[in-house]
Amino acid sequence: MNTDIWLYSGLVAGVLSVLAALGAYARVRAYDSGTDRSREIAGWIRSGASTYLRMLYKTLLVVAVVLGIVLSVVFSGIEEKPMHGLLTAGAFGFGALCSALAGWLGMSVAVEANVRTAVACKKGVADGFQVAFKAGTVMGLAMVGVAVFGMCLLYLIWRDVEIVLGFSFGASSLALLAKAGGGIYTKTADIAADLVGKVEVGIPEDDPRNPAVIADNVGDNVGDVAGMGADIFDSYVAASVASMVLGASFAGSIGPQYAILPLALCVIGIVSSFIGLRFVRVGKDGKPGRALNFGTVFSCVIFAALATAFFAAVNAVSGGDPALGLNWGVLLSTLAGLVIGVVMGFTTDFFTNDEHRPVRNVAEISGSGTGLTIITGFSYGLVSIAPAIVGIVAATLASYFCSQAFGLPGIYGVGVAAVGMLSLTGIVVSNDAYGPIVDNAKGIAEMSEMSHEVVERADTLDSAGNTAKAITKGFSISAAALTVLAMFAAYSEVISKYSGGGSFILNLQDPLVLSGTLLGCIVPAVFSALTMLAVTKNAFVMIGEIRRQFKAKPGILAGTELPDYTACVGIASSGALRALALPAALAVLLPLAVGFLLGPGALGGFLAGSIFTGVVFALLMSNAGGLWDNAKKYVEAGNCGGPGSEAHKAAVVGDTVGDPFKDTAGPSLNTLITVMSLVSSLFAPLIARFHLF
Amino acid sequence: MNTDIWLYSGLVAGVLSVLAALGAYARVRAYDSGTDRSREIAGWIRSGASTYLRMLYKTLLVVAVVLGIVLSVVFSGIEEKPMHGLLTAGAFGFGALCSALAGWLGMSVAVEANVRTAVACKKGVADGFQVAFKAGTVMGLAMVGVAVFGMCLLYLIWRDVEIVLGFSFGASSLALLAKAGGGIYTKTADIAADLVGKVEVGIPEDDPRNPAVIADNVGDNVGDVAGMGADIFDSYVAASVASMVLGASFAGSIGPQYAILPLALCVIGIVSSFIGLRFVRVGKDGKPGRALNFGTVFSCVIFAALATAFFAAVNAVSGGDPALGLNWGVLLSTLAGLVIGVVMGFTTDFFTNDEHRPVRNVAEISGSGTGLTIITGFSYGLVSIAPAIVGIVAATLASYFCSQAFGLPGIYGVGVAAVGMLSLTGIVVSNDAYGPIVDNAKGIAEMSEMSHEVVERADTLDSAGNTAKAITKGFSISAAALTVLAMFAAYSEVISKYSGGGSFILNLQDPLVLSGTLLGCIVPAVFSALTMLAVTKNAFVMIGEIRRQFKAKPGILAGTELPDYTACVGIASSGALRALALPAALAVLLPLAVGFLLGPGALGGFLAGSIFTGVVFALLMSNAGGLWDNAKKYVEAGNCGGPGSEAHKAAVVGDTVGDPFKDTAGPSLNTLITVMSLVSSLFAPLIARFHLF
Repeated sequence: MNTDIWLYSGLVAGVLSVLAALGAYARVRAYDSGTDRSREIAGWIRSGASTYLRMLYKTLLVVAVVLGIVLSVVFSGIEEKPMHGLLTAGAFGFGALCSALAGWLGMSVAVEANVRTAVACKKGVADGFQVAFKAGTVMGLAMVGVAVFGMCLLYLIWRDVEIVLGFSFGASSLALLAKAGGGIYTKTADIAADLVGKVEVGIPEDDPRNPAVIADNVGDNVGDVAGMGADIFDSYVAASVASMVLGASFAGSIGPQYAILPLALCVIGIVSSFIGLRFVRVGKDGKPGRALNFGTVFSCVIFAALATAFFAAVNAVSGGDPALGLNWGVLLSTLAGLVIGVVMGFTTDFFTNDEHRPVRNVAEISGSGTGLTIITGFSYGLVSIAPAIVGIVAATLASYFCSQAFGLPGIYGVGVAAVGMLSLTGIVVSNDAYGPIVDNAKGIAEMSEMSHEVVERADTLDSAGNTAKAITKGFSISAAALTVLAMFAAYSEVISKYSGGGSFILNLQDPLVLSGTLLGCIVPAVFSALTMLAVTKNAFVMIGEIRRQFKAKPGILAGTELPDYTACVGIASSGALRALALPAALAVLLPLAVGFLLGPGALGGFLAGSIFTGVVFALLMSNAGGLWDNAKKYVEAGNCGGPGSEAHKAAVVGDTVGDPFKDTAGPSLNTLITVMSLVSSLFAPLIARFHLF
Repeated sequence: MNTDIWLYSGLVAGVLSVLAALGAYARVRAYDSGTDRSREIAGWIRSGASTYLRMLYKTLLVVAVVLGIVLSVVFSGIEEKPMHGLLTAGAFGFGALCSALAGWLGMSVAVEANVRTAVACKKGVADGFQVAFKAGTVMGLAMVGVAVFGMCLLYLIWRDVEIVLGFSFGASSLALLAKAGGGIYTKTADIAADLVGKVEVGIPEDDPRNPAVIADNVGDNVGDVAGMGADIFDSYVAASVASMVLGASFAGSIGPQYAILPLALCVIGIVSSFIGLRFVRVGKDGKPGRALNFGTVFSCVIFAALATAFFAAVNAVSGGDPALGLNWGVLLSTLAGLVIGVVMGFTTDFFTNDEHRPVRNVAEISGSGTGLTIITGFSYGLVSIAPAIVGIVAATLASYFCSQAFGLPGIYGVGVAAVGMLSLTGIVVSNDAYGPIVDNAKGIAEMSEMSHEVVERADTLDSAGNTAKAITKGFSISAAALTVLAMFAAYSEVISKYSGGGSFILNLQDPLVLSGTLLGCIVPAVFSALTMLAVTKNAFVMIGEIRRQFKAKPGILAGTELPDYTACVGIASSGALRALALPAALAVLLPLAVGFLLGPGALGGFLAGSIFTGVVFALLMSNAGGLWDNAKKYVEAGNCGGPGSEAHKAAVVGDTVGDPFKDTAGPSLNTLITVMSLVSSLFAPLIARFHLF
């Protein structure tokens, strides 16, 4: 088969990407890790992070074994392919393993790089940036490397997209645990540390006297590095797999090459990110934010050029044979997704950047009462849903009609648009992982009492990280939305295939479909609530522990005694993992319950409903959270009364509310809807045949 | 025609109901209105309320004239029926007038009854209850009376449900202005009065020294009496009309009597409420809450009995002819709606009553920080969506399959289920209007310095009012949800009828339908945000005015000078009406834009999307708001530290956030989605023929 070369180049690109990640890792480790004091602090963070990761992966192992057994039993008994059950289970485990591996690598380098970034800041902003960004690329390159390698390998061996679907489900299951767990962990520690440290006893942030300070720094790594990485990994794989499923189901009419094309686009994405990463560089004391954005936009341009060249080359070689060539409509759809994704990332900025009205209005009204801070910020969060959804609709319609105009099924265009948007995953994850590294670096610089200048440089790097993070979030929500729309279409294709050929129509006037949709609307709301209630509950416990330590050892506040950091790390770790059980089980069991009880139509509606409210709440929470965070920073910068004023107190409350909004509940919703879509697609062959209504 | 007797009895019942309302009004006026002081205070509230109502109705007149001209021009040029445009415009104006009339009557009696209730409390709780509840029934009876009279009259004359649709659109347009405007008004005044009065200068609630105190009391009347009444009036009419449209479109296959049956059910509802109202009575110092609930449940039982008797009688007379008799499946669907509506009203209680975990948990965690109060309350609000939507789904499926099992179109069953749920409107509106009357009575008792005992009795009446209000809200959201589901089906029927007979399928896999749905999801979010931002903006202005008065006239706080109440009343009135323009325009224009641009499929999706997020946000906001309110009251009752504690301060912020949630944004969403559904159904004949995509 002609297209096998795409799969082999995927293997090669994957391996090279992982090797490049390991190389970057080695170079990061070679940097100076500073004094004993800074090394000691970094050591606490490192050991806290690995404690949590070990516990997380142990939990995952249990989940994987249970789900693996279920998958192999359920799918072995009834499928035409006798080995299908075992293979799906194996692919599932492999997917989880790949995602875990990349996450572990990213975390390991992050907790080494933080102290080295702080030390490098002694020389200058550019030096600090160099270390942190190189460490970020470890995560970015490892992610895309193992993902592409894994998908290509599985497809090369079994030539069955349903096996690759198992891989994607494995990656998503891990992502759900990592993202939601990390989100609960990080905000438990953050809120508890702030409420007792800053508000009650009045010590500054990142003060080593605070027993929760290490847990707080560990949280940045497990939430923002491991969690966010797993989340984007999961969207990346899911988008590719959804397009592969769609391509495979239309293979008879449009040609078999479209089932594998998404993987070829991933390879082009890896190459583009690779080139783009070389160009991310800050001049002596220049702007780190501009360097990050330049890398992203530049990679986009390279991707567009390479993808065009690829289509031209394939068409030249195929000699006009439609069964071998590539339709230009697909290229247009891909680029439509890419361009709209980038535009949307940047427009998120409007609602969360203090140069615009929303943040300033919230800061100004804070002087009149905390209630008004919350209402106004929440309202702007609601408004911010509008441009983002209009963007998602624009991307959907543009990619659909681009493909349709060229004679292909429009929905395949939506799938590749998601792949196009996510083709930049390598560089986006790198930018994103950079954030918590410089955040930690700032903390370590403060805790190990480096000079004021060094702390200020680390702060400059940190602000750039915050902006990058906001853009990444806007980008990842829209990419996830397109991905689940494609996944939703993939589900429908699988159902039509197994329910006897008739086309499967999701008619909203059908009471079962409508009921399924209404039920689906509930899930993101309840899931958010469960994760946020876990945060408040765990924070409540940790606040008790911090108060207990201050009381039992008065020397802590005086600076003569060391607090017991591990107690807080333990509360955050075990609390987060315990709290995961119910929401994770809901994500897997609810779609199955709806499908087997109310039938495939109701399940289709259920997925649609969860996408609708999932996207709405994800945008609301991420943007409102970002807005409150920056309104607080705006007041702290001396506006509207400045630090210590009534406005500041109100803004701090806004930020506390925004914390679990933007870092726990909001971003977990992407993963939730992906997992539910994957469970549904995976079980679709069974649900199509066995259902009560 | 045999069924004409139903229409004539509707006219009679309507007239009798209005007469009974007028009689109750006269009896309320005959009660003692107390001292000069109490009469003076009541006079301020009355004049403030009528100032606002006059401004509101003037605005409405402009809107009605503009929309009337548009309707008559648009529908005259192209319809087969040459007079259709003028008739629709006339029906529209008539609908708005009827709703305004009932609202005006309800408000007038409320502002007379408040002072009389306070005075009657001197004798005892039962006497106070008697006055307030009788005044409430004025609104309840007037509402159902004019609604049924209007619908029957229009149908008797023109025999065209599309004309009755115009009536419903008129009622809804008024409701949107009255509900959203009243909601903005009441919370502007409430928040401003609290933030300056209670928090800044430390005077108690309802203190006559507060310049915003009269605006606050006026707000209760315009928001909770006129606004909520118009809202339920609108659901009541819309549910009946939607079922009539469905009945008419199936008339060929199931018989013409089903198009008029909803009106017959309304008549039975009036009679049941009438009987039920006689039994609402409090023994000497008994429980007013129990009396209200007993009336509701008792009316339900009577309705069920009367409806069954009615079906049996019609079937006996028809002698087994299916073109004359009534299908028992319809009765089952109606009763399913009724029962589930009542059950849901009471279950809302779980999340907002301080006897259960949610309110107590929020109160307890308040001691650890305001941020946690907000996050926890918001999370419980999210969870509260689940049981309510499960109830709506249960009602939908039960009513659908009850009708289908008896050989009727299932969707007609959903329509009559909504009518069944709303058949109790008479008594529900009475209970609801009782709330603000006793709330005002308490205020007047305090301001005119009546004895402590009287204030306490008024407070007992007020608590019962709050519980009734929570139940009414749960009830009205579920009724509105079922109504819009029926309206959504009615829209589809109209589209199929005018697009050449082919059945109209709303397939979620169609990119236009999907895009429409995603766009529809935005609207309730943005609408809520606009109304809440109006509240914070207007409150900000009013806070400035209150501070200015305190500064300019130091005698106000000393009690030697009167504040200028009218300044605050003016700010609240004009601010609320100005803020309405954009959201009201969006509600009418957006569905038309989507319909004419993206086509009837996209508009169907748009309506569905707005229903999904509309129901979700309405439940979230109403329940979270009620929860925070009661958590504050729980702390004020001496729990978790009691008044003045840190927990109390945090709980007060929660209440401030909850105020616009539960009284401005949340309840307006019902009306928003009804208006959008009606605009779509009304314009469906045109959209089916003219659209860009």
